[in-house]
Amino acid sequence: MAEEVKLYGIVTSPFVTRVRIALNLKGIKYEFIEEDLKNKSPDLLKYNPVNKKVPVLVHNGNPISESLVIIEYIDDAWKGLPIMPRDAYEKAQARFWATFIADKCRPALLKAIGSHGEEQAVAEAHEQLQFLENELNVKGNKFFGGDNINLVDICASHIAYWVLTAEEAFGIELVTKDKFPKLTEWRGHFLNCQAVKDGLPPRERLIAYYKQRFGKA
Amino acid sequence: MAEEVKLYGIVTSPFVTRVRIALNLKGIKYEFIEEDLKNKSPDLLKYNPVNKKVPVLVHNGNPISESLVIIEYIDDAWKGLPIMPRDAYEKAQARFWATFIADKCRPALLKAIGSHGEEQAVAEAHEQLQFLENELNVKGNKFFGGDNINLVDICASHIAYWVLTAEEAFGIELVTKDKFPKLTEWRGHFLNCQAVKDGLPPRERLIAYYKQRFGKA
Repeated sequence: MAEEVKLYGIVTSPFVTRVRIALNLKGIKYEFIEEDLKNKSPDLLKYNPVNKKVPVLVHNGNPISESLVIIEYIDDAWKGLPIMPRDAYEKAQARFWATFIADKCRPALLKAIGSHGEEQAVAEAHEQLQFLENELNVKGNKFFGGDNINLVDICASHIAYWVLTAEEAFGIELVTKDKFPKLTEWRGHFLNCQAVKDGLPPRERLIAYYKQRFGKA
Repeated sequence: MAEEVKLYGIVTSPFVTRVRIALNLKGIKYEFIEEDLKNKSPDLLKYNPVNKKVPVLVHNGNPISESLVIIEYIDDAWKGLPIMPRDAYEKAQARFWATFIADKCRPALLKAIGSHGEEQAVAEAHEQLQFLENELNVKGNKFFGGDNINLVDICASHIAYWVLTAEEAFGIELVTKDKFPKLTEWRGHFLNCQAVKDGLPPRERLIAYYKQRFGKA
């Protein structure tokens, strides 16, 4: 049976992009269906009646929601480059950092961006980023996943690309080379991966989104 | 080598209890170290420097935080009764419902309890609970996990026991038999499992905690 893989999403969402990167890493062809969140499609409401949110991956008719859940599903359902570590403890560590990025890092970064770089908000974002900097420093690897990107790298794509774009759009500095040399280096490696490049939204769309959401600096 | 398993927690936390139930299900002996959250131990700060929260499981010196991450680790690291489904899609569904309980159900239920049963708050909690009622109804199983409890049942222990205790303490009605016949039935089955019974906090401590947190009805 030919596989049917559909992804419902919006182009500028970091959560949707996570799924695109995971699909690209596995070499899975998929149809991307762009949603209008102000006028959600009957398909989206049918496939995710609980949260009515994107991303939703539909694999041979089976819908899956929540980006972390989808990424682990992709790793379970398809062979190819592994996204999750195989060792139980390393796997737990990867899930911990993925949760940390979602619960702590992203809100702090959004606050810093939304305030156009207000000092206290930036200090709080830096406090969270420092944990990731230390993690890269201790491990001494190219990626959070070692030689290849894993769940943590994928989840940190928000830091690599969304934050970078916001820095440029608003002329603020968040992930600076002097404060975060390892994260800066990681960002370069990460944005240079083909699977990542092919999954990211165009810079112009992201800037337009940021200006609309957070206004001009 | 003899295994060393330590759990840092507080007795009344539903997140800590999730881990105790998972350990009991696997038949793992562990040392429970009760924390004072107003005066956290050096061990807790060493083992969870990022969040400084309980539960933390320490397995042969390796610390793991975040209840969902710990439960999956326990399932990966020890054989015995499986906590996660083996099928990739069923596993994704279990993770989805676990996330739903944490992100949607628990906040709505806490609001309903904290308001001592205020009408609108109860209606919002019911809206979330209805999704779980439907899920049990569609599957037609004893537990969310089928014949045995799984990740979702463990995560829903808050609904089974904490909510029940709050209902009794404050004389409010949340999970009623007429509105939620399946959830009520599930609650009975769940609270009757030995691994669950052995993991739950004493009722009196929970009531004392609720009265302190939410005041008298």
